[in-house]
Formats: sequence, structure tokens, C-alpha cells
Amino acid sequence: MAGGKADRPRPGEFELIAELFAPLAREAAGAFGLTDDAALYRAAPGKETVLTVDAMVEGVHFLPSDPPDTIARKLLRVNLSDLAAKGARPRGYLLVTALPETCSMSWLEGFAAGLAEDQAAFGISLWGGDTVSTPGPLTLSLTAIGEVEEGAMLPRGGAQAGDRVYVTGTIGDASLGLAVLREQLHSGSDADRAFLADRYRLPQPRVTLGPALSGIVYAALDVSDGLVSDLTHMCEASGLAATIRAADVPLSPAAAAMLLAESDVTFASLLTGGDDYELLLAVSAEAEEAFLEAAAGAGVPVALIGHLEERANRTPETLVRLVDAEGEPIAVPHAGFRHF
Amino acid sequence: MAGGKADRPRPGEFELIAELFAPLAREAAGAFGLTDDAALYRAAPGKETVLTVDAMVEGVHFLPSDPPDTIARKLLRVNLSDLAAKGARPRGYLLVTALPETCSMSWLEGFAAGLAEDQAAFGISLWGGDTVSTPGPLTLSLTAIGEVEEGAMLPRGGAQAGDRVYVTGTIGDASLGLAVLREQLHSGSDADRAFLADRYRLPQPRVTLGPALSGIVYAALDVSDGLVSDLTHMCEASGLAATIRAADVPLSPAAAAMLLAESDVTFASLLTGGDDYELLLAVSAEAEEAFLEAAAGAGVPVALIGHLEERANRTPETLVRLVDAEGEPIAVPHAGFRHF
Repeated sequence: MAGGKADRPRPGEFELIAELFAPLAREAAGAFGLTDDAALYRAAPGKETVLTVDAMVEGVHFLPSDPPDTIARKLLRVNLSDLAAKGARPRGYLLVTALPETCSMSWLEGFAAGLAEDQAAFGISLWGGDTVSTPGPLTLSLTAIGEVEEGAMLPRGGAQAGDRVYVTGTIGDASLGLAVLREQLHSGSDADRAFLADRYRLPQPRVTLGPALSGIVYAALDVSDGLVSDLTHMCEASGLAATIRAADVPLSPAAAAMLLAESDVTFASLLTGGDDYELLLAVSAEAEEAFLEAAAGAGVPVALIGHLEERANRTPETLVRLVDAEGEPIAVPHAGFRHF
Repeated sequence: MAGGKADRPRPGEFELIAELFAPLAREAAGAFGLTDDAALYRAAPGKETVLTVDAMVEGVHFLPSDPPDTIARKLLRVNLSDLAAKGARPRGYLLVTALPETCSMSWLEGFAAGLAEDQAAFGISLWGGDTVSTPGPLTLSLTAIGEVEEGAMLPRGGAQAGDRVYVTGTIGDASLGLAVLREQLHSGSDADRAFLADRYRLPQPRVTLGPALSGIVYAALDVSDGLVSDLTHMCEASGLAATIRAADVPLSPAAAAMLLAESDVTFASLLTGGDDYELLLAVSAEAEEAFLEAAAGAGVPVALIGHLEERANRTPETLVRLVDAEGEPIAVPHAGFRHF
């Protein structure tokens, strides 16, 4: 997080906001150039507002060595992933930065550049925020504001017994990427290692698919704590249990290679690793065709990995059952990845 | 921040949320019991949404010895003060807590109890949030969501030359209260000292007055960085300058006693001390009667302390001029109180 030799001193709060953050708010009329006490927002007619907030702490949610632009983009994207999981289109965000003295001006410039890049990519603006100092680690928090048509928010708990469980993209890459960056894994090609590190640093929120699933999918969430942990949440919210076929869980070629080469990497570790930021979706038999069309239309790969079912004697530890190709149970550690 | 001897261990993230925070979200349908990825909010017809966020870091914005319930209530109230300054009625909030390991369960129970108390007082609910761990100091951030009639938000920069400058309540108490709690001030009666400490720990957001000022007041903000600093912001936003009559700045009896008794307490230090959370308002001559009626109706004391004017050679350091009873200038340190 240190700046280069030529790094200039960090200005005061107001100057910092004016120089680095106000340009990010230029296109949002209701942000008032970040000079007012609050932001003003008017939802489009017939729309509802979806709000989410996520925090990231240096050393807990990102590595001190992570580049500032990817930290900024990840902070934004983990929140956009929450909006996508609710079928909401992102509109704007509020940013809180608690900065240690060691946080240099060049680091902050990189951070703001990352935000600018993703604002353009996702069509959103900074609306407001707060900048404070901290004697502790760099601490970031972002409130994302999105919109859905009235009544169109995707719930977490609307699944029915018999629904298929789908997941977008691939699972386990980010936890492997973190291990690569921590130098805990040494196999794999440079390209594979770079791919995995990138999956850790730059999640791909499914912002196009989420809003296309309204009326098709009635249980959705984003996989942030690990597939098993988040699927357990869906089961709890829907009063159901799940069976997942291990062989159908989509792995990237890089993750598959690590699984073969590294004894510390187990299939269970991929299913309980965090930071995937893929969507987990319950799809009824009747809606399956429409769902697959929506996914194809959004250009998002999806995989059918199991189904939801009624089950007697439901306990949190056994809501998600993992089976092999013959339907035989595979042990799976319950605990998902927890930053907390 | 340590718990008592009988303190029980802090549970994991999900259990903590379910036990302490979910009860605070019970009355908000769109909070989904804090079990979903996001909150859903529909503005009432004809209303706009006002959003603000403020962060507080232990040792920077509050003292480690401050009681947890007042820390919680101050966190909420500083945000409600921002909403009040914009004429918005509070509706709900999102809460981010970054908790060090040393933060005990009894501390958190006190924190949640403080939130519950103020939720009832201000008619709002918790809608969502994030709970993470931190190796650093306890760090809190709160996003408050309020509503105004369309077009009714009070701007910061709508003042005209000749407008009167009004302020609510009394100025300087909170900075004195902080000094009392830090044992930097030793005069005053116990009652005065308790009053000042309370003004530091528990700001009184002007939630009733703010929304009553729509159509009456065209420049408003809340005094958080110190009267001089925040009035400078209003001047900058309106392209004006201000003259303030020192003798008219309202002081509490406790603050006046400190000013007399303590050589370190100067009038200037009261005008540049932070954490007042009073409203600063520009009122035109035509609107003055309606303004005074609104203030009386809200039961909020207001004081006329000066006026806004055109001035050549405007520099940030001289936008706010302080004068004595004879109109002679009094030196005032420009720099407001900055947590940053």
C-alpha cells in the first residue's frame, strides 16, 4: 500500500474528495458533486429500490499486495453481485473509506481509477460517501443501489421441492486464486495461476443474467461464502434440502488441474471456498427452458448440479448432500468459508 | 469494550445477526429478516429518496470508554442529522460493523439495545447490513435512507445575499463534552459536565424541524465539522460570504460557564469545535416569519447569528467573518474540526 518515491502528500478530507471522488460523481445529478450532506434519488416509475452493503478489510477480505484498482473493483463487484442475485439493475453507490496514514496518494489514485473503470463497465455512478481516518487497517464499505420492476425482486426462499439447482460460471476458482497469491499452491501453468488469481481479485457479477430471470426463477442468491454454505442458506429459506452431484459441479480447467496436482486441494475445499460471486438458482421443471434461453441470451454459462427436495430430520449440517456418479454420499465439511 | 466476567463467547456471523440484529429488522418487510442478499424498498408515491452514510472509528470518532448504547445511537443520529438537514424524514438504515476480536458479546448487546431505543424514538428500522471481523479498531458505518416530497430536498447552496443565518440549539457543547471526557477540562459543576458529555455522546438530530422547512429555507446543512467550517461550506455552495455576530451565537449555560472558567476554552474554539449536529440555515427576509413559526411548531430553539453577503476577493479562509458587538472583526481560526 506504500506509494512510490515521488508520491505526493495526501491532502485533507475535502480536497481528497474533490480531487479523487467528485469526478466519479459527475454524471449523477443527485450526487451534487459530493458537496452536499446527502444524495437524492428518484426511482423510475413502477420500479422498486434494492439496497445492499458489503465491507472489506485489508488483511481479511483482500491482501495488502492486491493492486488498488482491483480492490476498488472487487468492492464494487461484490455488491453488484448481490444486486444481480436479486434481479436488480445497478444504479449508483455510496462509498466509505477509512484510511490509515500509510495509505498513499498514488494508492488512492489507483483505487479511484479502478472505480472509474468499473463505473463505465457497469453504467453506474458514485452518489456519495464518507472519508475518515483510521489507526487500523484500510477498511472499505460500499452501499449499492439498484432497481427492479415492482414485485420482480428474486427472493432467496421461493424454491419448491423438485426444483433444479443451477449455478453460473465455475466454482472454487477464487479460493484457489487466494491460495496462489498466498504462495500456498505451487503447481499449474503461469496462465492457470494468473487466471485463478484474477478470479479472486476480479469477480464477474452476473449483472445481465440476474435481471433477465424475473418471473422465471423464484430462489436466487450469490455464492460468496462457498457453494455448500450458500446452498444451505437457500435450503433454510425455502424449507427444503438439496442433493448435489459432485461430477456436475462446474470447474474451470485451471481448478481441475490444481485438484489433480495438489494434495491440499480437495473437491470439498472447492465447494466450501468463498468469493465465487456466481449465482445459485432454483429452477422449476416448467421454467427450465425459459431459464436456459435467458442464460444463453445473457451469454452466461450455467450448469445443472442437483435438485431440491423435502427431507425429514433437517439439520443445518445435512441440508446439502453431495453424491458421486453412483448416487453414493460423499462427505462434505459443512462450514463454508467465513471471513468473519 | 471488554465484557464482564460472565460474558459469553461471541457466536459466528450468522448467529450474531440472527440474535442481535434481526430483531431490529422485524418491522421492515423489505428487510426479509436480514436473511436475504439485499433489502427492498418502495418509495411512497410522489416521494424522492435521500441517502447518506457516515462512518465512526473507535479512538477517532468515539472514545473506547463510551458506552456501547450511546455509540450506536450517535452513529444513527449523525446520519439522521444529515437527513434532517436535507428536509428528509428517516425511513430505514443499513449497518456495517467491523468487529475486533476483543469486542465482547455484552458490548454488542448494549450496542443493539441502543439501536432499538433510537429506532423506537425515530420510527425507523434496520433494513440490512454487513458484519465482518477486523484486526483493527472497531469500525462502524451506517447508511440512512430518508424521504422527501418531490423537489422538496433542502439544498446546501440556495442562499441569497441578504439572507439571515440561523442556527438551532447551542454551539460548542459537544467539543467541550469531548474535552471533559478526556479529562482536559476540570471546572464546572457535575451537572454541567454531565450535560456537555451527553451533548458529545448523544446529538439531537433536528428530525422534526428539517422536514418542516421545505419551501421556506433554501440553504441548509448540519453543523458537524464546526460552525465556521460548515458555514464556509454553505458560503462556497452559494457563492457568498458570511458575517457572524459573536455575541449572538447561542451557548448553553454549561458552555458559557466553561468559557469563563477555563483559559484553554476560547470563543473561537467553540465555533470551530465539531459534533454539534445542529442545523445551519439561510433564511430570506420574506420567509423569516414562516421559518420562526416552523421552528416554534417543531419546538426547536433557533438563533439569528448573522447574515450572508456578496464579497469581493473571496478566499476560503475569509468567507466567514466574525464580529463583536461594535461590528469590529474578531480573529477566528479557519480550520474546522476534522476527524480526518
